[in-house]
Amino acid sequence: MHDLAAAAETEEPLEEIKIGYIGGGSTGWAHTFMKDIALAEGLAGEVALYDIDAAAAERNEQFGNWVQSRDAAKSDFVYRAYQSRDEALADADFVIISTRDDLEDQHADLLLPEEYDIYQTVWDTVGPGGTVRAMRAIPQYREIAATVQEVCPDAWVINYTNPMTMCTRTLYEEYPDINAIGLCHEVFGVQEFLADLVADYLDVERPDSSEIDVNVKGINHFTWIDEAQWQGRDLFDLVDRKLEDETPLPAFDPGDKADEGHGTNSWHVTLELYRRFGILPAAADRHLVEFVPWFLDVDSREEIHRWGIRTCPTGFREQANDTFGNRLEQPDTPITERYMSGEKTFELSATGEESVDIIRALCGGHALKTNVNMINHGQVANLPQGAVVETNALITANSIKPLTAGELPRQVKNMVMTHIDNHETLIEAGFTGDLDLAFQAFLNDPLVTIQSDRAHDLFVDFMEAYRDYLEGYDFENAAIIE
Amino acid sequence: MHDLAAAAETEEPLEEIKIGYIGGGSTGWAHTFMKDIALAEGLAGEVALYDIDAAAAERNEQFGNWVQSRDAAKSDFVYRAYQSRDEALADADFVIISTRDDLEDQHADLLLPEEYDIYQTVWDTVGPGGTVRAMRAIPQYREIAATVQEVCPDAWVINYTNPMTMCTRTLYEEYPDINAIGLCHEVFGVQEFLADLVADYLDVERPDSSEIDVNVKGINHFTWIDEAQWQGRDLFDLVDRKLEDETPLPAFDPGDKADEGHGTNSWHVTLELYRRFGILPAAADRHLVEFVPWFLDVDSREEIHRWGIRTCPTGFREQANDTFGNRLEQPDTPITERYMSGEKTFELSATGEESVDIIRALCGGHALKTNVNMINHGQVANLPQGAVVETNALITANSIKPLTAGELPRQVKNMVMTHIDNHETLIEAGFTGDLDLAFQAFLNDPLVTIQSDRAHDLFVDFMEAYRDYLEGYDFENAAIIE
Amino acid sequence: MHDLAAAAETEEPLEEIKIGYIGGGSTGWAHTFMKDIALAEGLAGEVALYDIDAAAAERNEQFGNWVQSRDAAKSDFVYRAYQSRDEALADADFVIISTRDDLEDQHADLLLPEEYDIYQTVWDTVGPGGTVRAMRAIPQYREIAATVQEVCPDAWVINYTNPMTMCTRTLYEEYPDINAIGLCHEVFGVQEFLADLVADYLDVERPDSSEIDVNVKGINHFTWIDEAQWQGRDLFDLVDRKLEDETPLPAFDPGDKADEGHGTNSWHVTLELYRRFGILPAAADRHLVEFVPWFLDVDSREEIHRWGIRTCPTGFREQANDTFGNRLEQPDTPITERYMSGEKTFELSATGEESVDIIRALCGGHALKTNVNMINHGQVANLPQGAVVETNALITANSIKPLTAGELPRQVKNMVMTHIDNHETLIEAGFTGDLDLAFQAFLNDPLVTIQSDRAHDLFVDFMEAYRDYLEGYDFENAAIIE
Amino acid sequence: MHDLAAAAETEEPLEEIKIGYIGGGSTGWAHTFMKDIALAEGLAGEVALYDIDAAAAERNEQFGNWVQSRDAAKSDFVYRAYQSRDEALADADFVIISTRDDLEDQHADLLLPEEYDIYQTVWDTVGPGGTVRAMRAIPQYREIAATVQEVCPDAWVINYTNPMTMCTRTLYEEYPDINAIGLCHEVFGVQEFLADLVADYLDVERPDSSEIDVNVKGINHFTWIDEAQWQGRDLFDLVDRKLEDETPLPAFDPGDKADEGHGTNSWHVTLELYRRFGILPAAADRHLVEFVPWFLDVDSREEIHRWGIRTCPTGFREQANDTFGNRLEQPDTPITERYMSGEKTFELSATGEESVDIIRALCGGHALKTNVNMINHGQVANLPQGAVVETNALITANSIKPLTAGELPRQVKNMVMTHIDNHETLIEAGFTGDLDLAFQAFLNDPLVTIQSDRAHDLFVDFMEAYRDYLEGYDFENAAIIE
Repeated sequence: MHDLAAAAETEEPLEEIKIGYIGGGSTGWAHTFMKDIALAEGLAGEVALYDIDAAAAERNEQFGNWVQSRDAAKSDFVYRAYQSRDEALADADFVIISTRDDLEDQHADLLLPEEYDIYQTVWDTVGPGGTVRAMRAIPQYREIAATVQEVCPDAWVINYTNPMTMCTRTLYEEYPDINAIGLCHEVFGVQEFLADLVADYLDVERPDSSEIDVNVKGINHFTWIDEAQWQGRDLFDLVDRKLEDETPLPAFDPGDKADEGHGTNSWHVTLELYRRFGILPAAADRHLVEFVPWFLDVDSREEIHRWGIRTCPTGFREQANDTFGNRLEQPDTPITERYMSGEKTFELSATGEESVDIIRALCGGHALKTNVNMINHGQVANLPQGAVVETNALITANSIKPLTAGELPRQVKNMVMTHIDNHETLIEAGFTGDLDLAFQAFLNDPLVTIQSDRAHDLFVDFMEAYRDYLEGYDFENAAIIE
Repeated sequence: MHDLAAAAETEEPLEEIKIGYIGGGSTGWAHTFMKDIALAEGLAGEVALYDIDAAAAERNEQFGNWVQSRDAAKSDFVYRAYQSRDEALADADFVIISTRDDLEDQHADLLLPEEYDIYQTVWDTVGPGGTVRAMRAIPQYREIAATVQEVCPDAWVINYTNPMTMCTRTLYEEYPDINAIGLCHEVFGVQEFLADLVADYLDVERPDSSEIDVNVKGINHFTWIDEAQWQGRDLFDLVDRKLEDETPLPAFDPGDKADEGHGTNSWHVTLELYRRFGILPAAADRHLVEFVPWFLDVDSREEIHRWGIRTCPTGFREQANDTFGNRLEQPDTPITERYMSGEKTFELSATGEESVDIIRALCGGHALKTNVNMINHGQVANLPQGAVVETNALITANSIKPLTAGELPRQVKNMVMTHIDNHETLIEAGFTGDLDLAFQAFLNDPLVTIQSDRAHDLFVDFMEAYRDYLEGYDFENAAIIE
Repeated sequence: MHDLAAAAETEEPLEEIKIGYIGGGSTGWAHTFMKDIALAEGLAGEVALYDIDAAAAERNEQFGNWVQSRDAAKSDFVYRAYQSRDEALADADFVIISTRDDLEDQHADLLLPEEYDIYQTVWDTVGPGGTVRAMRAIPQYREIAATVQEVCPDAWVINYTNPMTMCTRTLYEEYPDINAIGLCHEVFGVQEFLADLVADYLDVERPDSSEIDVNVKGINHFTWIDEAQWQGRDLFDLVDRKLEDETPLPAFDPGDKADEGHGTNSWHVTLELYRRFGILPAAADRHLVEFVPWFLDVDSREEIHRWGIRTCPTGFREQANDTFGNRLEQPDTPITERYMSGEKTFELSATGEESVDIIRALCGGHALKTNVNMINHGQVANLPQGAVVETNALITANSIKPLTAGELPRQVKNMVMTHIDNHETLIEAGFTGDLDLAFQAFLNDPLVTIQSDRAHDLFVDFMEAYRDYLEGYDFENAAIIE
Repeated sequence: MHDLAAAAETEEPLEEIKIGYIGGGSTGWAHTFMKDIALAEGLAGEVALYDIDAAAAERNEQFGNWVQSRDAAKSDFVYRAYQSRDEALADADFVIISTRDDLEDQHADLLLPEEYDIYQTVWDTVGPGGTVRAMRAIPQYREIAATVQEVCPDAWVINYTNPMTMCTRTLYEEYPDINAIGLCHEVFGVQEFLADLVADYLDVERPDSSEIDVNVKGINHFTWIDEAQWQGRDLFDLVDRKLEDETPLPAFDPGDKADEGHGTNSWHVTLELYRRFGILPAAADRHLVEFVPWFLDVDSREEIHRWGIRTCPTGFREQANDTFGNRLEQPDTPITERYMSGEKTFELSATGEESVDIIRALCGGHALKTNVNMINHGQVANLPQGAVVETNALITANSIKPLTAGELPRQVKNMVMTHIDNHETLIEAGFTGDLDLAFQAFLNDPLVTIQSDRAHDLFVDFMEAYRDYLEGYDFENAAIIE
């Protein structure tokens, strides 16, 4: 028996750790991480930054050390930028991966399918865009895994990059003994939704979403909740009431919420899937609609507004204030300099991200239960072993163990399996270079309901557009490429 | 060791057998059966006819005995019509099932989906029409299985009715120890196609299709061939040549073939699926297109002509000369009387149907290898045990054993699994009466890519149209019925 | 994310609960429970005692209330004895099961096999004695589960009775949705052993065994540990050193330890199995030897002393001071009266048992990680779903979720599977009453390596000796009974 | 549909084939094969002999050509001996494998275990002797498979060598796409036994055993029959009568049958296992007793006589007239010369062996159903895929397809699984060279119920005795070797 609260009370001072950061030049996730790690009392060591954009990593080295010098900083970390991935990861205790894809590519991910009447709302996970994005990611993540195996085989690897399932799956395929997890926010959003329902319907003060206990099972951005409680009280009757209150579907005026951007979530798709399958999906609506054929079966972008969703405006990434703005080309003065010069205010406060909490737990701090993406060792009983699935896990000193989440209902299992089979086929295609095989997965994506020869043309268009990013694939012997 | 040819040579005179015939009033399958059984030298006994249309069964009793009295008849059978299924099947050695669905229903199966922009080419297997047809069939086939269990538990049951998989699956669910198989022609058609290729490309006389040896695996109307040989020669390179010759797709003028009816098969879809998945589907194109989302994703019926297929003309069943014409209301003078009076010529010759050959083999005659639909006991290794699958089987005296056919390729397995999961859900719904569950299967049919609320409306329209045929279902507590 | 330590800090005052206690007249487990529940600050409600010995339950009602009246008691519970199980469990939030088997039976469990040269060391789990004990337990536990289903279907059921796996498995077979776990100490003993190794070899103060973190997988009394760490330090090299230090096997003089009783554990068998299979068993040696054929393959009791174990002395249960003494017939003055009169000192202090901690955790108190016996939903990936397995679980408010423990090595899996198959066969035999089937399990027990006809005679001897306790079994139609 | 008798009637003249024969110097199996192939009308080509004893192969070349020159010979084959395996198998259509183990080794296989009180009756399959024999065979069969893969990848490979399962399994592990089967007589013996029962109890002329139709499933020498019929009549009631007639067990005087040798079969063990498990084992009693712990649990060889079996007399292989005599050192004048000189009569008649019939069937001759050992692709539904199992298969032109045989009853499955797990562990050990792993399989053999340290000593004795035959194994790093 192990009292997980008592353990925390006797927390030992933690040893010095090395954290390797792949994508360490980013101004988004990396800056978030810097804040949390600076506030992590008791932790100390080195943050080793690596980025294919070496200058960006160097700016972050300077900035990271500046953050650590703030009065509010409680931990004791030194930042250092490295020219090679090998050096950055050498003997690392933890590896954070948060890489970005090329912006122009993303435009094509989105724009090309529209030429074939396929509309996507996010394009980073599944659908035609997500599929080719996965194809590009596999070679990169093989390299990262190979480096981990060579220079820090026991490190805990935390991936934040999409397509989450495919990136994490690639790590395991390349190095089966890797200690890797993938982290994603989407489940938290549903916990917030449920916390709102508690406040709305139960006449109590709104609980913090971390108090909402859920049983999670599925794959990232298409995971499901079949148990939800707050203080031992089952919450599904509240979902039923919400569903009733939202029937018929309220009108959605996308113009009104334009300033909230593409991330708006009206929960209409969540409720519709719950209504049909009796189990609650746990991702934002804009993700969910990409996994099933119904909601994006439209003749124009506007039709999907009735579900409270919008396709991603292709121009949105140019907008300076966008939450993903970090991925843009930097303006003349990098944001790090503007922070350090005081031109822009930098607030050193907890961000709500959990990677640093997870690092603390693995170092012997407070035990955590949270949802993670890991290889299925039985946690979802009716999904295949070896696939990457998303469920809760218990994180304690030097240990991450998924909790058994049980089976998915048959019809939901089937919808999830379509994607898992596609994933496995893409992995096989990525490791063998077989483009014809990759096209089979492309064709079986639920958004690809167009004529099969048009699907072929779209795939070939993609292959031509991305040929430079798909070096490991065998274009010579692909029947698909005529 | 057992020399299967030698066995036949020592064939014993066969005992008297009783064959119960459910749907024994039909003028199609029943008449075909009558010819073959009349020609089955050495067989003798009773054919017990039962039909919900008692008069039709009586006409067939009279007609069957007339056929047996022809000079060409070699077997010794007596026909008798029964008023109850129990009497007809009592102590039967064999049971033939060939029932028909109500004509008007079939119109609705086809017409209702078109109101929602879903086009079907056959509607008797899957798709919206096939799904609701399955829902109607389950209660009927439960009753048949219960009768078998009670009055002839060891009988060999041969089903010819569609939806083949669902009818056969229902028999096993109701009475797990039933000795049931489902028979279908579709694989023979592909054997004919391959025999044509042998003649076309190998400069030899066209072999009989029965000489084409194929390894079959999948589900009825969506089964696949991964080994094909003739006299030990692999035939897949011939398929490759055919594929090349048919690229680009030849134009198809449906008008030219109007008189050949809806059953025209141009093999375009077969070749397209082979091109994409590297394994040969083994059913007519009009069936194949209903199992996948691509080919019927059209805005009008005409668009599908490019694949060499046509939607079923809703009026066709009124046409007197149609091959399915037997199911129509009889004209003033029943066809049996016209045969017997000589008004219409009745030719007593072998039909090529195999049920009588199977009966002979089970009685100790020539061993057969043929494709059958049976519960999966391992014959398709990566489909779930307990589903009904179609593979080859060896039929010898009192024994039908499926041959192991190996695994389906992953992406084909996934396409098949979508239907198997739907089947299992429909069985669960049919045995519990849960309409909400049935709708989950309906929604996950690959042809249902319309908006989910429209799919709901279509399903409810069906439920209302068919309410009288769906007595076992619980309309009261169905959330789907508002 | 859920910080499991933080949760405890915000612990809410707990509601009143009802705890039903089957076997509530016991003076062993029940008195242990009384101490812990009396000390459980914040808990309140009723403890409802039921025992087939109604007088014993009433004595414990009186005694329990006396305990609650002590100054040291911090919780607020009322004890009440019930005449029927239904009343005791009605609307219970928790059910504790700790029943006893008949003393004489146990003697036969042990003595009969010795007549056939089979020696057992515990006889309560497997082996001939354990097998027939399981046969007797199944009908009793079916009744308990049926009562739970009827009067308190959502209660958390905690079983302490052996054969642990079989009793718990029976509960689930009778009522599949039961919230049941089985608890056992044996893993704690190995954690103590590992804590000793830490102190012995690492030159640090001996840690508390609860700090030893282990990954547990297998079945009760035959479960295995493949990960063991203390403060992030892997402990298997310490086991290797211990193994080396204990090679060759030190002499064992059972006489020297006679006063420590049958429970003496020298870890010789543990180390031998670790040496051979590379994974550490997690139960006392006297249990382990009953699961495999080697150690008890002896011609006399004394031979097994070389492994540091002893057969259970058949007379030991008469000894008043034995740790199991509670199960004996009470002397003239019941121990409860002697406690209450002060004749015997009653010390109200924590016992180290965990059932009350688990109840607190389920009520929203400190989260726990501990090993439990539950239906396999994937926690041991290569053992069959639906078997009862022992692994770690996370226990939080209203939730017990097993942690995925991975696969067992093939040869250990095989040894465990022999018992799981026997369990499943005994369940089938117990629910159908089929004695011939039960004998198949008996024959396949690893301790039954005698000639099969002698095994048959032993089984029949057992059946005759226990006929009164085996009412549900079909003696009439058993071929085994001639 | 395929009429398997009709096919035979239209049999085409067969092409010239090349048959490679590994162990082609033998005087047992090879001479049997020579007879059958000489009588195979319509077949023609080359028989390519290879043997590590090159002189023996050359003698057989001469002898084979002499046999072909007899008047009675109907086929047209030329024999040729090769100095290398590569040449012998180059472009072969068929490969026959019938190798022999070293005689002295076999003595040790048998004698060493007796020093540890373990008695074996055959020692060529399982038990301590079978296990180490498998360890020696794996490296040899890896080489054969590698040669097949290189020089005749599509050849049909027929193995006759024991341990059958392990040799065949090794072929597949080395070259997964190999077309290999293993053949064994044991099932035929049970068909003879059942034919006797037909004659004894049914008052009909004794049928030929090939008319007894059985459903076979399990592993070689431990396979089981759950369906048995003759002319559609179930035979299990006859087995029941036989069982009754043989109860109590008739006395067995091994002396009376000494001249019949070690192969005497009284069916007592077969009937005892049938009595206990309700399913009929299908191998000779002397094989069966080695797979389970009960019958050989004796203190002396004589004790096992009560089951009608005898341990193999260690001297028997020296006896000139033994059926295995071919494996002996040849006398001064080789038997081939004595045949050719007329000193010894050579009768050219069919032997009843089936390899030539199988070759004919694969060439397009009569279709066969017989039991074969092949990789499990689903034929035994509850044994693991990838293990080698024995079931019926249908053999037609260029095709061998196992028939699905269904599941084994749970307790029989468990007994079989113990051996399959041991096999898989031995394969892993043989391919990695891990002796410690091999010992795990050795220890888990059902005959090894001695103390585990004595088992260790026996294993080490074996390893030392056979070190020269175990080159691929890693003695350096084996913990087992101190």
